[in-house]
Amino acid sequence: MSRISDVARRAGVSNSTVSNVMNGRIDRMAKETLARVEAAIRDLKYRPNTSARQLKTGHTPLIGLLVPSMANPMYGFIAREVETLAQERYGFRIMIGNTYRDAAKEAHFFEDLMAHGVRGVIIISSLLDEQHVEAAAEGGLVVVSYDRRATPGMASVIDHVTVDNFETSRLATQHLIEQGHLRLAFVTPSGRTMSRSEKVDGFLAAVRTAGLEGSAQVVEGLPVDEYGDSMMSELGRTQAVLMAKSKQRPTGVIGVNDLLAFGLMAGFRDAGLAVPQDVSVIGIDNVFLSTLMYPAMTSVRVPVPEMAQVMVERVMNRLSDPSLPAQEFVFAPTLVARDSVAAPLRGESPAGQVLFS
Amino acid sequence: MSRISDVARRAGVSNSTVSNVMNGRIDRMAKETLARVEAAIRDLKYRPNTSARQLKTGHTPLIGLLVPSMANPMYGFIAREVETLAQERYGFRIMIGNTYRDAAKEAHFFEDLMAHGVRGVIIISSLLDEQHVEAAAEGGLVVVSYDRRATPGMASVIDHVTVDNFETSRLATQHLIEQGHLRLAFVTPSGRTMSRSEKVDGFLAAVRTAGLEGSAQVVEGLPVDEYGDSMMSELGRTQAVLMAKSKQRPTGVIGVNDLLAFGLMAGFRDAGLAVPQDVSVIGIDNVFLSTLMYPAMTSVRVPVPEMAQVMVERVMNRLSDPSLPAQEFVFAPTLVARDSVAAPLRGESPAGQVLFS
Repeated sequence: MSRISDVARRAGVSNSTVSNVMNGRIDRMAKETLARVEAAIRDLKYRPNTSARQLKTGHTPLIGLLVPSMANPMYGFIAREVETLAQERYGFRIMIGNTYRDAAKEAHFFEDLMAHGVRGVIIISSLLDEQHVEAAAEGGLVVVSYDRRATPGMASVIDHVTVDNFETSRLATQHLIEQGHLRLAFVTPSGRTMSRSEKVDGFLAAVRTAGLEGSAQVVEGLPVDEYGDSMMSELGRTQAVLMAKSKQRPTGVIGVNDLLAFGLMAGFRDAGLAVPQDVSVIGIDNVFLSTLMYPAMTSVRVPVPEMAQVMVERVMNRLSDPSLPAQEFVFAPTLVARDSVAAPLRGESPAGQVLFS
Repeated sequence: MSRISDVARRAGVSNSTVSNVMNGRIDRMAKETLARVEAAIRDLKYRPNTSARQLKTGHTPLIGLLVPSMANPMYGFIAREVETLAQERYGFRIMIGNTYRDAAKEAHFFEDLMAHGVRGVIIISSLLDEQHVEAAAEGGLVVVSYDRRATPGMASVIDHVTVDNFETSRLATQHLIEQGHLRLAFVTPSGRTMSRSEKVDGFLAAVRTAGLEGSAQVVEGLPVDEYGDSMMSELGRTQAVLMAKSKQRPTGVIGVNDLLAFGLMAGFRDAGLAVPQDVSVIGIDNVFLSTLMYPAMTSVRVPVPEMAQVMVERVMNRLSDPSLPAQEFVFAPTLVARDSVAAPLRGESPAGQVLFS
């Protein structure tokens, strides 16, 4: 079993520098020093004594993690990154709960966390109403919220870590427009979360910029909040079959996330259309399964490992220093072009609007 | 807030019957009574007071759950089922860890569970060597192991809940043989777990029964134990490309699980082969993503909801009655035929062995 002094010696730093890294106090640390300490921690498989930590801080070395559904591969990926970081760097374990985006379930989970002596929580929810989350934070929990922005003009006691959701769908829409698509659709479950609303806005902004308001539509299916995994792709599949039958069917379609977009691709095939020859499809999230689809699916990358790191660091830093103010961290998405997008067939677009050559 | 007496009144039973359901003592309860109590619990949103429970039992109302990687959709699905049941029926939360199938990480997680006052754990590992798990059980943890059988002839203090892994691959292989396939392959990472070994045995048994030993192969890739998610499908993809180039390439291929089989389908396509016209592919697990593949992938269903229920019940029952002996529960798999399997093209099979008409 390595000790803190072994790590310090190997990294050529003091014990307290190692302790600073272990406790997330790295804001003013040179990057190179941090890298050296992290390498030493890894090489020596050093892990802090959690009982000693708890005596000192009065906290249970547990972080709460709320996800809509662990069966959704995107949330599974985030959970894996969060847990691995929390454990390997801080010796913290994860208490996890599926909340099916239900505010009552979320509030109850917060109560249970407090009862267990847990004081830090990462919540993936993005429900429009954030009051129960603010209440938990005011009750003493350090809360980091994933996938939604702070409410403009309101002081928040919650950290917000999110990708720029507006930009995810704007990028996807712009990509379709650049390929020559004029009839566009954005498909989402109804039951708006903050992130879904922002994505709809990003879609509409790109549509307006290109002057395509007359031939673009937001398609809302039934709410599927209570699941978020297989129900999400089923929704995409159902909507694709309906769209395929419509007279002015879109030639370029964006799914609110990859799971829904997987369903879109399957549904268009069910209806006898080929992707991308007859219809182009783009997802958002860039889960690893996108590369396994046929055709490999174009998607918008959300930088999960980078975001998970910030979320874990924020929880740990604010646990050790409660005076730190809440912050907002917005990450940029990037388009990952694969094979599910092509130029539309000639003659498919409204008369007089053939932009592509 | 509903109380136990409200639930009892609504279900028309005594308080102690409700308590028996909450504590998993349902072995001798009439099914109809159990259903009535469960409905009343659901309708009234009744949840036990966890602090009171803890005072009475001395246990923290937490169950540990170890998975190789939460980013694997199969483990995410199991985790969702386990967490939802534990919470809704028993008011227990889940402490989760990624162990990357590493025995040292598993052992360390057991220590942390004990330090947190957790006394029940469900472990998905199926490493060949189970000593560290037995040691944890002898140290006072109630352990339920998923995906492996008890070691024959050895008394165990661990519950084993598993699908019949031998039968999963035997079913898949037999299905390919019935379609007329003579050149068969079973693809798995090297680094054998108990479940992988059993699946290889099931494959070979079906091959021997059909007298196809001369044209069947077990393909072992690099070990990918440390991940279990995207690495698993990458392995399938790489091996498919290699197989596609081989002179006596197989016409029917089974992946050790769905993720690997998704990679097989993608890899065969990369190599210019069509599934199922040129090569048939079958997975094992039947994760919901199988229906979204193109073609929709034939797979062998593992009854996850049913298994999750037994796992949670076993942990809870043995926590309330430590005298209960450990048991083994083996579930039957079923083949779910979709579109990734077809009869092989004529002339593709070894001379004189054309079984199909």
